[in-house]
Amino acid sequence: MTDILEDRLTLSREARDLLFLEARTANSFADTAVSDEQVRAIYDLVKYAPTSMNQQPLRIVLLRSAGARGRLISHLARANRQKSEEAPLVALLAADLNFHDRLPEVFPHVPAARDMYRDTALRKQSAQFNATLQLAYFIIGVRAAGLCAGPIVGYDEAGINHDFFPEGDRCVLAVVNIGLPGADPWHPRLPRLSYEDVVTVA
Amino acid sequence: MTDILEDRLTLSREARDLLFLEARTANSFADTAVSDEQVRAIYDLVKYAPTSMNQQPLRIVLLRSAGARGRLISHLARANRQKSEEAPLVALLAADLNFHDRLPEVFPHVPAARDMYRDTALRKQSAQFNATLQLAYFIIGVRAAGLCAGPIVGYDEAGINHDFFPEGDRCVLAVVNIGLPGADPWHPRLPRLSYEDVVTVA
Repeated sequence: MTDILEDRLTLSREARDLLFLEARTANSFADTAVSDEQVRAIYDLVKYAPTSMNQQPLRIVLLRSAGARGRLISHLARANRQKSEEAPLVALLAADLNFHDRLPEVFPHVPAARDMYRDTALRKQSAQFNATLQLAYFIIGVRAAGLCAGPIVGYDEAGINHDFFPEGDRCVLAVVNIGLPGADPWHPRLPRLSYEDVVTVA
Repeated sequence: MTDILEDRLTLSREARDLLFLEARTANSFADTAVSDEQVRAIYDLVKYAPTSMNQQPLRIVLLRSAGARGRLISHLARANRQKSEEAPLVALLAADLNFHDRLPEVFPHVPAARDMYRDTALRKQSAQFNATLQLAYFIIGVRAAGLCAGPIVGYDEAGINHDFFPEGDRCVLAVVNIGLPGADPWHPRLPRLSYEDVVTVA
């Protein structure tokens, strides 16, 4: 298996380890700050990954103030609170339900693009799908910065949306704790499904 | 901006180019086969990226036979057909709506995990969310193998689901063309939203 990986991938062993093989979801974090400049570097890397019609619906709120972080934590499932209390940085990742207003700028060669998303339900579904792709790219980007991500989806979704996006124009996708790993940061890795479980040929 | 990227990221310049900065969505492909061994290497890399409760709902169908590829192409929007006719490999990426049946194996320390997803609507929503994360990881993995991905979501979704998953236990997320880039494979890169457009601080 290792030989196949060596032979078939272009990505260096070091990068494979950093992004996938050695990278882990952290449950505890070291007391080392994560700067806005680090987040900018992450964004400026992952912004190039693809979305449908270049929608780019992902929006990120960095919870830097104690007040904002406290409000967010109050919406988390109890088991998830301590992790987000201790993380150096907590980010709220959301989908912009009005992403289509930017299409004339980011998809300029199709002037009708904005009107293709006039239907609210279709637009929300597409925003959530593409922002979820971008959430995954963001997690890989956090790892590319030498940091650990701790994504959380166990929370009161309506509560977060009402509290942070009262205009109803965004919806939360995940909370991501970000930092260097702390003491005893993770359990042994859980089993992965095999290639034969996942891939079939037709 | 380049200086910030240099300073703030651990990932090598070469890997950044391969996965994000130079990587592009291909619209035409070279006539070079993509082997099952390459797909296995991609899967064995990206399978380690995180999903909620280690769900791993993504399932992949490689359309190797002319019959299966033809059936898929008949469901694509007309503008997307030629790309999938010419790609060396076309993969159908779907969410397994019964992913919870594997939780006793992949999330063994929480025996109640399977029952947490007894509700069909909740389970479908979670399967689609997590399989969409895995679709993004897969696109990055295709690039890690030195190949180009061409993801497509413009198709008759109900038609594909009925045709390929008649038991109703999976739903399509994307069709991904895979191969080396062909002649004139892409247009100039489209604009990306700025950091200030996307990231705010609270």
